[in-house]
Amino acid sequence: MDGDRKPELQIKPGRYEDAALGFRNHWYPALLSSEIGEEQLVPLTLLGENLLFKRIDGQVYAIADQCLHRGFKFSTKPECFTKNTITCWLHAFTYNFRNGELVAIPSAPDSRLIGKRHLHSYPVQEINGMVFAFVGDMDPPPPLAHDVPPGFLDPGWTVVGAVNVPSACNWRLAADSGFDPNHIFIHKDDHFLAALDRPFPIANRIVGGDTFHEITEVTGPGPKGLVDALGKSEPVFEFEFECDGERGRMASKIPPNEMAYLAYGSIEGSIWLPGALKVAPWPILGMVHYEWYVPVDEKNHRYFIAWGKPCETDADKAAFAHEVHTKWKYLGYEQFNRTDLIANLGVETGTDGLPYRSVENLFEGDGYTLVWRRLASQHNRGVQTRRGIPTA
Amino acid sequence: MDGDRKPELQIKPGRYEDAALGFRNHWYPALLSSEIGEEQLVPLTLLGENLLFKRIDGQVYAIADQCLHRGFKFSTKPECFTKNTITCWLHAFTYNFRNGELVAIPSAPDSRLIGKRHLHSYPVQEINGMVFAFVGDMDPPPPLAHDVPPGFLDPGWTVVGAVNVPSACNWRLAADSGFDPNHIFIHKDDHFLAALDRPFPIANRIVGGDTFHEITEVTGPGPKGLVDALGKSEPVFEFEFECDGERGRMASKIPPNEMAYLAYGSIEGSIWLPGALKVAPWPILGMVHYEWYVPVDEKNHRYFIAWGKPCETDADKAAFAHEVHTKWKYLGYEQFNRTDLIANLGVETGTDGLPYRSVENLFEGDGYTLVWRRLASQHNRGVQTRRGIPTA
Amino acid sequence: MDGDRKPELQIKPGRYEDAALGFRNHWYPALLSSEIGEEQLVPLTLLGENLLFKRIDGQVYAIADQCLHRGFKFSTKPECFTKNTITCWLHAFTYNFRNGELVAIPSAPDSRLIGKRHLHSYPVQEINGMVFAFVGDMDPPPPLAHDVPPGFLDPGWTVVGAVNVPSACNWRLAADSGFDPNHIFIHKDDHFLAALDRPFPIANRIVGGDTFHEITEVTGPGPKGLVDALGKSEPVFEFEFECDGERGRMASKIPPNEMAYLAYGSIEGSIWLPGALKVAPWPILGMVHYEWYVPVDEKNHRYFIAWGKPCETDADKAAFAHEVHTKWKYLGYEQFNRTDLIANLGVETGTDGLPYRSVENLFEGDGYTLVWRRLASQHNRGVQTRRGIPTA
Repeated sequence: MDGDRKPELQIKPGRYEDAALGFRNHWYPALLSSEIGEEQLVPLTLLGENLLFKRIDGQVYAIADQCLHRGFKFSTKPECFTKNTITCWLHAFTYNFRNGELVAIPSAPDSRLIGKRHLHSYPVQEINGMVFAFVGDMDPPPPLAHDVPPGFLDPGWTVVGAVNVPSACNWRLAADSGFDPNHIFIHKDDHFLAALDRPFPIANRIVGGDTFHEITEVTGPGPKGLVDALGKSEPVFEFEFECDGERGRMASKIPPNEMAYLAYGSIEGSIWLPGALKVAPWPILGMVHYEWYVPVDEKNHRYFIAWGKPCETDADKAAFAHEVHTKWKYLGYEQFNRTDLIANLGVETGTDGLPYRSVENLFEGDGYTLVWRRLASQHNRGVQTRRGIPTA
Repeated sequence: MDGDRKPELQIKPGRYEDAALGFRNHWYPALLSSEIGEEQLVPLTLLGENLLFKRIDGQVYAIADQCLHRGFKFSTKPECFTKNTITCWLHAFTYNFRNGELVAIPSAPDSRLIGKRHLHSYPVQEINGMVFAFVGDMDPPPPLAHDVPPGFLDPGWTVVGAVNVPSACNWRLAADSGFDPNHIFIHKDDHFLAALDRPFPIANRIVGGDTFHEITEVTGPGPKGLVDALGKSEPVFEFEFECDGERGRMASKIPPNEMAYLAYGSIEGSIWLPGALKVAPWPILGMVHYEWYVPVDEKNHRYFIAWGKPCETDADKAAFAHEVHTKWKYLGYEQFNRTDLIANLGVETGTDGLPYRSVENLFEGDGYTLVWRRLASQHNRGVQTRRGIPTA
Repeated sequence: MDGDRKPELQIKPGRYEDAALGFRNHWYPALLSSEIGEEQLVPLTLLGENLLFKRIDGQVYAIADQCLHRGFKFSTKPECFTKNTITCWLHAFTYNFRNGELVAIPSAPDSRLIGKRHLHSYPVQEINGMVFAFVGDMDPPPPLAHDVPPGFLDPGWTVVGAVNVPSACNWRLAADSGFDPNHIFIHKDDHFLAALDRPFPIANRIVGGDTFHEITEVTGPGPKGLVDALGKSEPVFEFEFECDGERGRMASKIPPNEMAYLAYGSIEGSIWLPGALKVAPWPILGMVHYEWYVPVDEKNHRYFIAWGKPCETDADKAAFAHEVHTKWKYLGYEQFNRTDLIANLGVETGTDGLPYRSVENLFEGDGYTLVWRRLASQHNRGVQTRRGIPTA
């Protein structure tokens, strides 16, 4: 809740292991555009804060979902007497939805609070079929372009936000796993691969170096992130082992050909603050895959996917949007990336009740995870807390 | 659990903000008379304590619902070998239900515990179709007349307890809101008003003074409470506001006439320790409305309503009771006061996990709430705690 | 999770009141043999630890159900490429199921972790149709024979494990009650007694001594336990009491004859660390009853029953197993011992949220309970804790 005075704002990065609720002062996807119509109210929890979204004359706004007066949650019984206001159902405190200002109190029309107090108003931007909200104190906020993967806002590309689903685990489990190329073992039975008749590795071995040093840091003035070293790695399409006289074998469902090695090596993954992954090309040549892990609370996040492709004409753009919604949402998400959600839940279940990272025994392949945690710890704009208390 | 010795009892008022479990050493409504028949056992939680009620030869008694011996909860498998006893199903410890005394142990008929140890026995009084229990240590307890709104026990009036419903929020949210005349905004769409074709204000403005100083304190030897200043207020039947070029209007569904101002101004509300409201006249001229907010635990209370009217003959009394059960329970509760429960839940939801009062920004109309909290803090007989630890 | 070095192990008994999770370094029943088939995986929580069982070539093994690497819980999506291994579904870390050794990582086949790190492997023994696991750090563990009631492993007896059910209360409530002969009051309406036309006491009175001093301690080199003093007690088949002019009577459903006193007096109960009861003869002459209270977590345990009888030929053994599964599982458990679970739940409910023992008022008959708690506190091999912190 904002007071009248604004103390000088200190932007100080915090540790990834303290960021159970995510990083403050960043932009996050909140909704797909299709999920909020004109004059529709949508309540959402982001980074442990309750927000209320409304689309007014086409533009989306967001305010704190809690009346200043006694804390009544607007969305339990929302009341709007005009398009651009919200009135608390309890004592009729009425606010400008566009900026959070308290504009009227019927029982005290001359109250000293009017025009002075205001609800927190969250900066919102809508692009590529997605609604982004800025959760933080910076005013003005930094540009959205600093908080999305490079290329996401490129005008030559058509990008279509298509997936927004809940996942009952901490967002860091998803981020750690998303950038880690060794988690691909989980995808070996995914129907996506069979449908495209595509050989896919079950593991990934670094060649001539290690996973700690071959990852490229990007820490210039724009988005901060890491680019993987798949080009310096060798995909593993089959693996045999022996244990006490028994032999076991794991392998790609579709046997690899020469092209498979080349194709996989040309894929580049990168991860970006506050928690977004870019994979290109993916799911097919000529397309780019973006995904986000958006903190809801300590035990929940939302998973967003957008896919992009260069399009020139409006007809091309419409055709691509149609393809995303009818084909890739099914094959790319339901038959592939949804498997990631299952994996992350298994880690949440296995480590439930234990502090983040406390049961880990990292191995040679975990440079990805360590380097990501280090970059995230150094370049975020502050750790989100509940009432000032960090939670691990 | 009572020991053999009784230390000198100290009655010391505690702070309202510490009273999540209510105030100790007061009388509270526990049941409607109709909810407990002859020899019926009813388990209930009040102020965080588990009580077991039984009606024996017409009179209601209450004991702690937990065997002295190993803590077995009687009501999970109650066993009564005589009308006036309860036997623990586990080891057959048998108690006098009328006073809690341990009267027999089959496996140790000469035990030194018999006749010495006893369950806590809660004083009970039944009046006006309601069963009141005293939760505390005072022996004897203070008179019931000190803990109910004035007039409730008046022999010339017929008072009918009619509503006893659970509400999943702390009792203080309900008490704060009940005495606050500005919460009436929530009732504007209630069918009760339409059914009686009654104009009803959407807000209330103090005139010539402020809400802090016009409220009357009653702190004599009997009930302690506050009487509102509606007579010095101006009801607001419609209100207009402007925001960024749009105009909004809120108004009473039924347009007001001259009588409406007069009628509303003649209503008097008052709040009484440990947490009861009186509104008169209400719901119509000639009737009085009583309601209670009874703490169950930190997150739950029970809401009771009784209505009264002067009656002379038995036929009048019976007719009034009939009217309460067939008409007012529907129109007065279902179509009006139930809306209060929804409002209180919205505050509980909005402030969930936050300390009581921590998100408040009070305004000029909140004198009611502040004065009530001050009176309650000064005149209660102690704060109820769990095992000696106050909870906010 | 085991490290590379093993610090010198200290075996130090801990207090029963701290043992909410049970005693460490003991053998516990985990499963009935029939509940785990060849190559079947069974996940189980014992003493707050997650175990995964597998039967390989007839023998049952158990490992920690959590991958060393990132904590993924194997059983959320188990994968076995050979009979004797388990592979983590997330990054394909592959372990020898027989000893927990890490045998392969496809993405780092030469990892320094391989052959060095291992999952905790729990010693397992299968006997009498039951699978026992050792939860602790002793290597090798003490003999199973030290942790089961005397006679359980006697080769002349056929013992059939038959019941394994969950109970939503702390294991100590069950152990306290099991050895306490006064809890028999709960059984008075059990169909088992009617079906066998058997008089059964409702209480039990010690004669010539007290329950504290007549119980026999067994603390030699083998199992540690206590033998009851029923032989020095007098069974009570009926009891009358008076309260405020009313007379009450409790009695055995089947009136006792001379034989009933003799028969009951010849039953001997005994309790053994880490939490097992033996009753002989029971349920009929010539049979022995064994039961265990196996800690799952602070609020749950599992209840096991096995019945035994001397058998000479294989046909005798098969006939007895058939009798156990068709007759005693129904009459002995469903119609008798299941009542104990209800009783224990009533104590859990009545004392919920309160520290163990905090509401007790023990009487003359509670020597059984006190002596058991003392013996258990003196002779266990350590208190099980969550991450080093004892829980009451």
